[in-house]
Amino acid sequence: MTDLTRLSLAAMADGLDAGSFSAVELLEAHLTVIGRANPALNAVWDLDADGARAAAVESDRRRAAGEARGSLDGIPIGLKDNIDVAGRPTTNGLGLAWTAEADAEIVARLRAEGAIPVAKLGMHEAALGATSDNPHHGRVEHPTAPGRTPGGSSGGSAVAVAAGMLPLTLGTDTLGSVRLPAAYCGVVGYKPSFDAIATDGVMPLCWTLDHVGPLARTVADIAFAAPALTGFEPEERPLQGLRLGWVAEADTVAIEPGVHGVIDATLARLRRAGVTIEAVDLGLGSLSALRRAALLIVEAEGAVALETIWADHPEALSDTLKGMLSYGRDAPSSRYVKAFRRVETAGAAVNAALESFDALLLPTVGHTAFPFDAAVPDDQADLTGLANMGGAPAITLPCGADGEGLPVGLQLIGGFYEDARLLGMALAVEKLLR
Amino acid sequence: MTDLTRLSLAAMADGLDAGSFSAVELLEAHLTVIGRANPALNAVWDLDADGARAAAVESDRRRAAGEARGSLDGIPIGLKDNIDVAGRPTTNGLGLAWTAEADAEIVARLRAEGAIPVAKLGMHEAALGATSDNPHHGRVEHPTAPGRTPGGSSGGSAVAVAAGMLPLTLGTDTLGSVRLPAAYCGVVGYKPSFDAIATDGVMPLCWTLDHVGPLARTVADIAFAAPALTGFEPEERPLQGLRLGWVAEADTVAIEPGVHGVIDATLARLRRAGVTIEAVDLGLGSLSALRRAALLIVEAEGAVALETIWADHPEALSDTLKGMLSYGRDAPSSRYVKAFRRVETAGAAVNAALESFDALLLPTVGHTAFPFDAAVPDDQADLTGLANMGGAPAITLPCGADGEGLPVGLQLIGGFYEDARLLGMALAVEKLLR
Repeated sequence: MTDLTRLSLAAMADGLDAGSFSAVELLEAHLTVIGRANPALNAVWDLDADGARAAAVESDRRRAAGEARGSLDGIPIGLKDNIDVAGRPTTNGLGLAWTAEADAEIVARLRAEGAIPVAKLGMHEAALGATSDNPHHGRVEHPTAPGRTPGGSSGGSAVAVAAGMLPLTLGTDTLGSVRLPAAYCGVVGYKPSFDAIATDGVMPLCWTLDHVGPLARTVADIAFAAPALTGFEPEERPLQGLRLGWVAEADTVAIEPGVHGVIDATLARLRRAGVTIEAVDLGLGSLSALRRAALLIVEAEGAVALETIWADHPEALSDTLKGMLSYGRDAPSSRYVKAFRRVETAGAAVNAALESFDALLLPTVGHTAFPFDAAVPDDQADLTGLANMGGAPAITLPCGADGEGLPVGLQLIGGFYEDARLLGMALAVEKLLR
Repeated sequence: MTDLTRLSLAAMADGLDAGSFSAVELLEAHLTVIGRANPALNAVWDLDADGARAAAVESDRRRAAGEARGSLDGIPIGLKDNIDVAGRPTTNGLGLAWTAEADAEIVARLRAEGAIPVAKLGMHEAALGATSDNPHHGRVEHPTAPGRTPGGSSGGSAVAVAAGMLPLTLGTDTLGSVRLPAAYCGVVGYKPSFDAIATDGVMPLCWTLDHVGPLARTVADIAFAAPALTGFEPEERPLQGLRLGWVAEADTVAIEPGVHGVIDATLARLRRAGVTIEAVDLGLGSLSALRRAALLIVEAEGAVALETIWADHPEALSDTLKGMLSYGRDAPSSRYVKAFRRVETAGAAVNAALESFDALLLPTVGHTAFPFDAAVPDDQADLTGLANMGGAPAITLPCGADGEGLPVGLQLIGGFYEDARLLGMALAVEKLLR
């Protein structure tokens, strides 16, 4: 029998519609993978097998009655553990848990489409960091390279997809937390335009930069889910004639030779397919300095977002997290204001450049998944943060592997609320690269 | 002969078109008033009589050639002294002056419409305060009540209009700095929707809350100039059937009996004209606490905006100003973030209420022009700041006088970028009250 967990979302939906398998069978296939793979990976932190089974029975009943809800009816999904699912624990990666009284707005929306919340997924503590090496809940492990980070902060959301535990997950992305683990794990991560997915019921870290976004195995899967998630209908378009801007500032970030080679080869393939790629200098200078400004905003707003939990449960925050939040909290307002202005100006430059190009192009991250015991590169989010600053939609898709077989991600940034066009371009790029 | 300075803007434009008088004559009439009245009022800080005369000659030549530029061709205007006029000094109310290299964007726009910049107008130091009692340039005096404040920070812009020195001026409004002096001086002040008038070339105080807005004697004059200033064409509409929300939180602010009486009488007249007025609680609690949050944002951003000038010319800032800026600069970022969240939430509440009402209604300020030597009321901007928080358009128009004959202002707040509708309603209110 077909491994149902390896089907595309479209094939899952078609199979359900055709009666080739039931939502219960589809769910059980995924629960089996979770049961087998999760002990080593620690991607799933809370499993609602009973609730999901009951929902799958309901989904099958609806479909049999000709009342299927939407394109995702019967599709099992997972949620990063900072996204509320009614009746289930939320930890936000901290050393405590509370039971969510209601679904986050996006969870309610997906449920209304028939999707089945199955699991809460591991993450970096408070979403402030990108290794998913969690001091309270243990490490979320890389799906194919044990002992290496899957990236973060939405590590569990990427691992669950890569390992076939769930075909569609949600993460959050403040400076890259959906795209980084997607790139490290060789899956697709999409950060929609700012507020295109509501953050209500999602634990805030930084109101200025927080986004919610999905992860899946392919751009095709993301595109299949996009209308339900965001209302955007991907507009497919040929590569021939596309004009992409290569962000010149990417050269200020350390790019490992293995990543460089894969990206260069990818650019060459795109050019051969008729894509024009021109370097564009956004006038931003060092991306590291810019990321430091953005990080101050995250730390200052994070200190406010976590203030009550910190006061009531000081043991639930690691000293590392407390140190970062203290730094932001205590920095003089003038520093925050300058950082905000710098980030706002950078975001405006990103969006201005997108008036001249169909999309911007850059690596997702300059390195591949590194060992947990290695030093964490400072520049992890240098290339992903740009899209958050502009509120622009961005997507990472795998474009090859380095010398050690570790996945490399290519990042596309689209115009603000031009998500439909960005997804269409990403579909075309994926077709070329597969 | 008619006193040309007392004509409406429409009558000035008609007279110029009909050849009843020339732009040169119109200008000279205003220069005469400035020459006579300004020594006592100190509203004009820099007079460009030569430049204005040359521009008036050009305007007359254009009109004679059938090439009049726009509705404001030949109309003399004045600019608050934080708005750049090419070749003229800008002080921003500080103890120094620099020559502007280029027109601010709105000045260039008005010049392209044929308007004639005549004067730079007095203001509160750095636009941070509302008395126009300036430590470097002296007091701008109230036009009809010597020894009293004309309000601020755009004091000169209000006084110039009230005294007939200029029929149309621009001010800036961060928490009420256009509307407060307009109310104190008995003229009309209009703060358009956020960014509806570009702030390029205007000295910033607070990027989050700064607005540029015009002052004139009547709503009709403001409405006449609005298309040239903002592109909004006022949509006139009958009072009958309008539904206005009386902001319940206004009751948390001290309203002098004389102001209360005038406002109550005005509400009664509006009701008799068929307007429905319902109290609406925006859930904001104390407006004073809210204004303090907004003031922290202004002080923190102001410290950054003025940082270079302060460093290079410390003597150009009063100790009072330095104290306010230091307070904002040094406050921990977490305080700024909390203040920002509070202000943003309040702005959202204002805009949400405007989905249920044609406009919100409240006094512009709870008192009338007070003596320079009296204590400055803390709550000056409690009622005006709301519109800045929501970026919503707001207008103040005179609705009577208190027992001492001092003007009282009525404030209307419209929906975000619904300026055309707000101006139309204000026109109807003005017609009723005159």
